[in-house]
Amino acid sequence: MQNYKLTLCYDGSRYSGWQRQGNTPNTLQARLEALLSRLLEQPVELAASGRTDAGVHARMQVCSFRAQTTASCPELLARLRGFLPEDIGALALEEAPPDFHARLSCVEKTYVYRIWNSEAPDVFQRRYRLRVPEALDLAAMEEAAGLLTGRQDFRSFCSNKHMKKSTERTLRSLTLEKEEDELRLVLTGDGFLYNMARILTGTLLQVGRGERPARDMPLILAARDRSQAGPTAPAHGLFLWDVKY
Amino acid sequence: MQNYKLTLCYDGSRYSGWQRQGNTPNTLQARLEALLSRLLEQPVELAASGRTDAGVHARMQVCSFRAQTTASCPELLARLRGFLPEDIGALALEEAPPDFHARLSCVEKTYVYRIWNSEAPDVFQRRYRLRVPEALDLAAMEEAAGLLTGRQDFRSFCSNKHMKKSTERTLRSLTLEKEEDELRLVLTGDGFLYNMARILTGTLLQVGRGERPARDMPLILAARDRSQAGPTAPAHGLFLWDVKY
Repeated sequence: MQNYKLTLCYDGSRYSGWQRQGNTPNTLQARLEALLSRLLEQPVELAASGRTDAGVHARMQVCSFRAQTTASCPELLARLRGFLPEDIGALALEEAPPDFHARLSCVEKTYVYRIWNSEAPDVFQRRYRLRVPEALDLAAMEEAAGLLTGRQDFRSFCSNKHMKKSTERTLRSLTLEKEEDELRLVLTGDGFLYNMARILTGTLLQVGRGERPARDMPLILAARDRSQAGPTAPAHGLFLWDVKY
Repeated sequence: MQNYKLTLCYDGSRYSGWQRQGNTPNTLQARLEALLSRLLEQPVELAASGRTDAGVHARMQVCSFRAQTTASCPELLARLRGFLPEDIGALALEEAPPDFHARLSCVEKTYVYRIWNSEAPDVFQRRYRLRVPEALDLAAMEEAAGLLTGRQDFRSFCSNKHMKKSTERTLRSLTLEKEEDELRLVLTGDGFLYNMARILTGTLLQVGRGERPARDMPLILAARDRSQAGPTAPAHGLFLWDVKY
């Protein structure tokens, strides 16, 4: 069996997230596994670098799978592209060493949350940005971001109440990038808990709107209680942006 | 009655074009006239700089209408924005001199046709770019573009067979802009015939693919026959980009 590394991008709008789960009809994993199994005429199981939530996009998602085939990677990639719907793109397919695993081998992931910070309408990017018409205090958001980075217990920023494993993660950086009216929150870390990028964003937006001070951040972290953090920002602004091995 | 100038942008994907026509259900003109008539509690008729076809977008479309109201422009604009669907944006509303007419006063329009010229998938801009995976001969396309500009009879580039008025127009410039894998055809002129921007694009794409030489252009123009030009490029790559008065 050969091990493969498949790099994808997708518009998550019409999918119920990455992870295959029981009868949920339209998950990316189920759709892609069905497609690859048909193409390769054998059952294919996909591992991904991380599970994106329903409605979250991927500029870059990395998967791995094992299969036995005489087809070359360029042949397989071309065939796969021929069958993918237009909201999923296959960026690359390569042979991978036997021990490569898209989730377990991943050392760093970057998420980007895109915000359209203007009173003007956002017609052409409306599916990929959250619209926030009111002015935001970027200095306060940056101060708060600085208090959230590093090795921390992010339990307060996790929607899974029954998370039994460690909720410690290293958020290597959380920076704000402003380009004209678009504000981007760029989050890089060794791992992200369920909804973590979106709850961090929702909390920073509260700070930006002056609804709570930056100095609340250490208190939220210390509470280890989801109810202390801000709301979960909508899915459609979030992109899995980069994955490192 | 006060005369108004309204600047819009829209995603044309789900509309049957600009122009209100009999029972066609979802034209931009009909939708916007109905909305403005309700807001202003009087029948409102809109003139636009030009009629975009079904599926064509507008980065900038200018309209004019007359109405009697005590509401200020900022008030009206805010109310209008509150009622517009998310694929139509109101960019500006201003009072206009009595003789201003969005179509008749227009002196120049620019259309942009966006092409994704790559074998890679185009997931996030797929609604706004035509995907052309094969290599294009840009030098030949530029040569052909140069032969199409100027004051010309564009009857061969017009889909309306029963056009009785003059089909002479001045195409002031037709330039190619390449930015990474995106190719843009930028067309500026004093007026455009029905489907003209899309037929010019379809013809230039034939030249870019090597299906016909640039030197065919004067022959196509001289023929004054739609069947001599190339196919009408799909609507979703085309934007009304700029309107000048």
